[in-house]
Amino acid sequence: MVSPAGCWWRRLAVAALAVSLGLEAVYRYLRRRRRGTPREVLFFPAPLSCSEPLLSPGTRCSCPLPHEAGGALSQLLRRLLGARRSLDICVFTFSSPPLARAVLLLHGRGVRVRVITDSDYMAAAGSQIGALRKAGIMVRHNQTSGFMHHKFALLDKSIVITGSMNWTMQAIQTNKENVLITDDGVCVRAYMEEFERLWEEYDPAGYHFFPEDDKEGA
Amino acid sequence: MVSPAGCWWRRLAVAALAVSLGLEAVYRYLRRRRRGTPREVLFFPAPLSCSEPLLSPGTRCSCPLPHEAGGALSQLLRRLLGARRSLDICVFTFSSPPLARAVLLLHGRGVRVRVITDSDYMAAAGSQIGALRKAGIMVRHNQTSGFMHHKFALLDKSIVITGSMNWTMQAIQTNKENVLITDDGVCVRAYMEEFERLWEEYDPAGYHFFPEDDKEGA
Repeated sequence: MVSPAGCWWRRLAVAALAVSLGLEAVYRYLRRRRRGTPREVLFFPAPLSCSEPLLSPGTRCSCPLPHEAGGALSQLLRRLLGARRSLDICVFTFSSPPLARAVLLLHGRGVRVRVITDSDYMAAAGSQIGALRKAGIMVRHNQTSGFMHHKFALLDKSIVITGSMNWTMQAIQTNKENVLITDDGVCVRAYMEEFERLWEEYDPAGYHFFPEDDKEGA
Repeated sequence: MVSPAGCWWRRLAVAALAVSLGLEAVYRYLRRRRRGTPREVLFFPAPLSCSEPLLSPGTRCSCPLPHEAGGALSQLLRRLLGARRSLDICVFTFSSPPLARAVLLLHGRGVRVRVITDSDYMAAAGSQIGALRKAGIMVRHNQTSGFMHHKFALLDKSIVITGSMNWTMQAIQTNKENVLITDDGVCVRAYMEEFERLWEEYDPAGYHFFPEDDKEGA
């Protein structure tokens, strides 16, 4: 025998559970939809493809390369081009022309771009750092003996792109590489703090490259 | 005035909210407890410290290095030593003695260790790959022109360790590096699939290093 009161509470509990599970599902669906499934891992090498449809939207390209936009490089470019307010890049070597074009495009749109890179490699053959600097993008670099070996970027301070891949054509087209993209708050905060820490550490005001400056009249 | 129906719905809403918040809290607590707060980002270089307390538990070490266990290398070692069933390593260069000792310790405990590495660097000075092979650990490597440039590991097929850091002393002690640790299902599955794909691709049965084998009698 179940008393009327017990029956009422049981119904309420079942209904509450159903509503709560429904709310949870809707919340998770909306969260994923708003962010565009931000957790993603891209693997390289990516098959050669033309990036023009992404970098020059609206123009027609007749080059012989495939124009599918599903490859890993296209997915990475699409993610980068999604930045609206800021793009903070911290990469060891940056020599990939399509990635540099994407960064210049964002800079031209008014996105605040900052770049941290490695002093040994920024002037190497094919480096895109000079082109970024010429366009007015802020670049800072290490001045110590170890490598600035990070390969991460932060979009709008809310999505981090990290992994093993330097931003070079060899990495994209030839190496086995991984790129992890996430909006996980713990990760984003950690990488953002590291970026800001290095940005301050590499402030040109603190450069000590030129010991001859200390020699009076030299 | 509140009608009985309105009152019933209000109670249902409050109960649903309470159940939903309770379920979410219990779910998060259990998830964190089971995994031990698995999302984490470690940054290097790490200050020099002695790894003996982790690698030889129970012994006393009187070396002059600090013995604090809070540094990034200690945290990474502690994570690795947490593997119970399997450890799948996929790293470009592996020359760090404390990391190699941790892997040998796990192998000795019966953890199934597999290693994928790069053919150009596995025989370089200081490489630990030979020591791992001598201990009976399975090692496979690429045989193509591009680098096997990944730097990730999978613990018990449920936690992935990835980032910019090769397993070398220069990376640990001198470079700016990041290591991301997560049990996110999407990430773990993606890295696990990449590992298994490369493990098959680098099966020694498919090696074509020795073209002279084709020459009859040569």
